[in-house]
Amino acid sequence: MDRRSFLKNSTIGAGAAGTAALAAPAYAQGNRTLTLVTTWGRGLAGVHDSAQYAADKITALTDGQLTVDLRAAGELVGAFEVFDAVSSGQADMYHGVDYYFLGTDPSLSFFSQIPFGMTFMEFNNWFYHDGGRELADELYSIYGLKAFPAGNTGPQSGGWFQSPINSPEDFQGLKFRMPGQGGQVLSKLGASVQNLPGAEVYQALSTGAIEGTEWIGPWADEKAGFQEISKIYYPAGFHEPGPNLNLVFNLDVYESLTPTQQQIVQEVARADNLWTTTLFMANNGAALQRLQQGGVELYEFSDEVWDAFGQAAQEVVQEPTSDEFYKRVYDSYQSSLEKSAQWIGRSQGTFTEQRDRVLGI
Amino acid sequence: MDRRSFLKNSTIGAGAAGTAALAAPAYAQGNRTLTLVTTWGRGLAGVHDSAQYAADKITALTDGQLTVDLRAAGELVGAFEVFDAVSSGQADMYHGVDYYFLGTDPSLSFFSQIPFGMTFMEFNNWFYHDGGRELADELYSIYGLKAFPAGNTGPQSGGWFQSPINSPEDFQGLKFRMPGQGGQVLSKLGASVQNLPGAEVYQALSTGAIEGTEWIGPWADEKAGFQEISKIYYPAGFHEPGPNLNLVFNLDVYESLTPTQQQIVQEVARADNLWTTTLFMANNGAALQRLQQGGVELYEFSDEVWDAFGQAAQEVVQEPTSDEFYKRVYDSYQSSLEKSAQWIGRSQGTFTEQRDRVLGI
Repeated sequence: MDRRSFLKNSTIGAGAAGTAALAAPAYAQGNRTLTLVTTWGRGLAGVHDSAQYAADKITALTDGQLTVDLRAAGELVGAFEVFDAVSSGQADMYHGVDYYFLGTDPSLSFFSQIPFGMTFMEFNNWFYHDGGRELADELYSIYGLKAFPAGNTGPQSGGWFQSPINSPEDFQGLKFRMPGQGGQVLSKLGASVQNLPGAEVYQALSTGAIEGTEWIGPWADEKAGFQEISKIYYPAGFHEPGPNLNLVFNLDVYESLTPTQQQIVQEVARADNLWTTTLFMANNGAALQRLQQGGVELYEFSDEVWDAFGQAAQEVVQEPTSDEFYKRVYDSYQSSLEKSAQWIGRSQGTFTEQRDRVLGI
Repeated sequence: MDRRSFLKNSTIGAGAAGTAALAAPAYAQGNRTLTLVTTWGRGLAGVHDSAQYAADKITALTDGQLTVDLRAAGELVGAFEVFDAVSSGQADMYHGVDYYFLGTDPSLSFFSQIPFGMTFMEFNNWFYHDGGRELADELYSIYGLKAFPAGNTGPQSGGWFQSPINSPEDFQGLKFRMPGQGGQVLSKLGASVQNLPGAEVYQALSTGAIEGTEWIGPWADEKAGFQEISKIYYPAGFHEPGPNLNLVFNLDVYESLTPTQQQIVQEVARADNLWTTTLFMANNGAALQRLQQGGVELYEFSDEVWDAFGQAAQEVVQEPTSDEFYKRVYDSYQSSLEKSAQWIGRSQGTFTEQRDRVLGI
């Protein structure tokens, strides 16, 4: 579905506007409960915590005016239904990662993750200070939504393998689990890409139904138990260097909030954004240490493999640039990435590389 | 002054407790104005913005209950007096960088910056999730204070030079401007370290009274005009890889706030933390591009120079470890740094290095 047909044809889109027009006057009076749906199973480490943080803090900071009722994936709607549910007004807001909805609009990839794209800091430099937010407002408003960055897993690992990857050819025919645009990139390298639900990955890996998998990062990977099956781990991957998690409101619901409540939502989302990312980073650091102590060996892809990732990733990312709006977001994103990356690489990148070398980290 | 004598002898410490005991009941009634002093001159790019953000958002989110009145450095008390002013209750809170107060307590360096220490992400991993906050609460409470990270300049540049630095020996006798512990490190390498106030640096550099200077980063450095005098710029430095800015309350004032107001303070500080850091990062990226277009050449120190920085920095940082509390914070900080740095370096560090190489950034 493209943006025009969504606007013209969507009965749920029309429903949202209608509901809001009727309900808005009532909103202003007294306390309200807002329903928050998520793309995460209840309790999923880090990402469910991030949604819960938003729910708890909005409830706490509005001093009883707003109570946010969190319904995890499957409790009210399924993980992949949250976008439509909030767009239509069936739920008031969702917390999730928007690359699940690229079928609705490919431009959502820039506000979740593109392979070979921005890290957490680079994304938020762009979003808060270099044009990203304005483009997001334009995009999400088409669907009757308003999005706030509210968390990030930090860089995701390259994954677990049965034998080391020495050249791009080693991906040919490799049965590897990687969803989304990252999976499309590996397909271009000849991999047999599997998109298994999380609950099935361990079993598939242990029976040889797949020969490797990426998951999230050391913290979640250790919980999943992949170190029991493989000892070959690539901490760096190309596919999700810093996926942004959004807190997304139904636009009419958001606009019915008082100015103070709207400011509270914005500040809570920003606080959640940093709190969640550091939660992943801190736990990943500790888990990586434990994995190594348990015999896991860390590997790095060669320059030749990274060249192949980069080439295929650019092809995948550039495919939708015939869409005028996608092209506009792409240009803004790439221009900001170049500025951010050069500064961060030449200052912080050089510093941390030298510090880690000198201190033997 | 050490912690024991501060507690035993400080009349301002006693004054703060007395004032709060009398005033606390009145606090609960009606609206209040809180005075925020800062270590920044009014309008100083980025850092004053960060203090203003905290003031504006606390005022906005409490819906008129709290009004934060910002008094920049010199308007109520001087930059270096804010710690004592808030500790004594003369002002309610300050926004600043706490390495200005190492004479009062050397452990404050861990909650601002130590040379060769943590970046923004590493610091906040530690603070929010790996023991930093608990140690900060213990430290600041001694002085009747409560601290919240609320901004960061990101990595500071290595600085501007008249000729390239090829070996550690090139620092011998070099008249270079660098304050604080970073300056102590350069002194160990034989530099003639000058600690000039910001307003005097341009003049000193242009007359040759100093032969080089660090300042903040491309954004602030460009505003200061150093590119008019030198074209030799080192984006990476060892001295301030990610200085943390704190929002610090008088503890009695903080404890007199309602639970909701306390939560608002915490969330606003976290939001400010990310907003300010990305403000610096985004502006630094754009400014670095302009500086290069204007003919500035970017340089990197050699491994040999970084070895010398690292050796001298460790000596400076380890000097106060005879203090039991300092040693405890040092151990927690180093242990967390090692975990964070290994994960971030091997995942994000490897990714960004490869991405920037492949994309030619």
